[in-house]
Amino acid sequence: MTRIDEFTTAVRAFSQERDWEKFQDPKSLVLALTGEVGEVAELLQWVREADLPAEFASPERKERIGDELADVFIYLVRLADVLGVDLGAAAEAKLARNRERFPTTGPNNVTGRLVSKQ
Amino acid sequence: MTRIDEFTTAVRAFSQERDWEKFQDPKSLVLALTGEVGEVAELLQWVREADLPAEFASPERKERIGDELADVFIYLVRLADVLGVDLGAAAEAKLARNRERFPTTGPNNVTGRLVSKQ
Amino acid sequence: MTRIDEFTTAVRAFSQERDWEKFQDPKSLVLALTGEVGEVAELLQWVREADLPAEFASPERKERIGDELADVFIYLVRLADVLGVDLGAAAEAKLARNRERFPTTGPNNVTGRLVSKQ
Amino acid sequence: MTRIDEFTTAVRAFSQERDWEKFQDPKSLVLALTGEVGEVAELLQWVREADLPAEFASPERKERIGDELADVFIYLVRLADVLGVDLGAAAEAKLARNRERFPTTGPNNVTGRLVSKQ
Repeated sequence: MTRIDEFTTAVRAFSQERDWEKFQDPKSLVLALTGEVGEVAELLQWVREADLPAEFASPERKERIGDELADVFIYLVRLADVLGVDLGAAAEAKLARNRERFPTTGPNNVTGRLVSKQ
Repeated sequence: MTRIDEFTTAVRAFSQERDWEKFQDPKSLVLALTGEVGEVAELLQWVREADLPAEFASPERKERIGDELADVFIYLVRLADVLGVDLGAAAEAKLARNRERFPTTGPNNVTGRLVSKQ
Repeated sequence: MTRIDEFTTAVRAFSQERDWEKFQDPKSLVLALTGEVGEVAELLQWVREADLPAEFASPERKERIGDELADVFIYLVRLADVLGVDLGAAAEAKLARNRERFPTTGPNNVTGRLVSKQ
Repeated sequence: MTRIDEFTTAVRAFSQERDWEKFQDPKSLVLALTGEVGEVAELLQWVREADLPAEFASPERKERIGDELADVFIYLVRLADVLGVDLGAAAEAKLARNRERFPTTGPNNVTGRLVSKQ
């Protein structure tokens, strides 16, 4: 039942307790986010599409990629916090806007895009 | 008060309503995640460290980057969902493990890393 | 017949002529590289595997992705130059090492990895 | 004196000799490229701007990042090859276009961007 705001506060406290805020400027955090997304990519890159379900049905592999997705999330919430962005509110607002931009029927519904461009 | 599990369900419903699940295989979602992280990077890349606070004190800039961070989060929750990963549980478990791996004092506390390696 | 060393010199001159070196610190260049890789990813993310050959047989699409791959290359050579790395020599050395690490037959030849880990 | 076209041919031969082409579809190669850019980012993420010159003056660190930049280049040339893109020609054309788009004087010369948007 993890709440984004509570997890953001926990990651901030974790950073403060270790005096790591001095390393966590926005550019460094985006580099860290890039590094973690790269680790997710490396877990998938050579798995062929037909083999993906079996690959991630394995508890060991699911835990492994879950761990990397967690790293992406930890840096994402920390970056948002450092920038003064309310990630939960921004995400809710974006999804609401996407519902308008991509009606469930009609000519706009032609892509698999989850997000609309500004 | 956004909860990860509820937001995951909302993004899943959004995708199902548009019949977009067929596009949302894990590899395609990681590419989409990469694309959105790239958009965050582009907003920061030429801003000099000293100018960052002023840059993102601007409500327009804060909303702009918040919108891109939201896109990253939307794809992250969708990717976790498609892989059958409980993102909130994985994140809580990772932060707990990091607390053990990086004590608040002592020789391990020498980096700004928020995440521990497996 | 583009040579990496000559192209590196051309990109350096381009940057110096515009007095852009002051923006091109290593971290900013990695963010720019991330942004361009993200643009490549966005061109592929929703194209289904079976549709890829037709998609990029189109001269317009091939030129479009070639333009983004060029952006990745421009930032890569600039980043190597700023770091004092001879990209061509590093690439030749890495490929030679990979030939040893991944024999063309036998038990090591079990992945699609083009690169070996240190 | 590495030439892009010759290196592209060498990486193609390396892949064919190992029967790895079957893994090297465009989406998988972009994931691999993302993974390698992520490794470059990880080498820089916690190094503070003032410490960067000393960090990469070290031969060991320079070789380490050169090795990762080489991995990015290897996947970039392989991806271009698989897509039928002449990377050298695309890069020369893009740099030439950037010279027009960003005159060395005047109002356009206001960013550190190395690349122009289409």
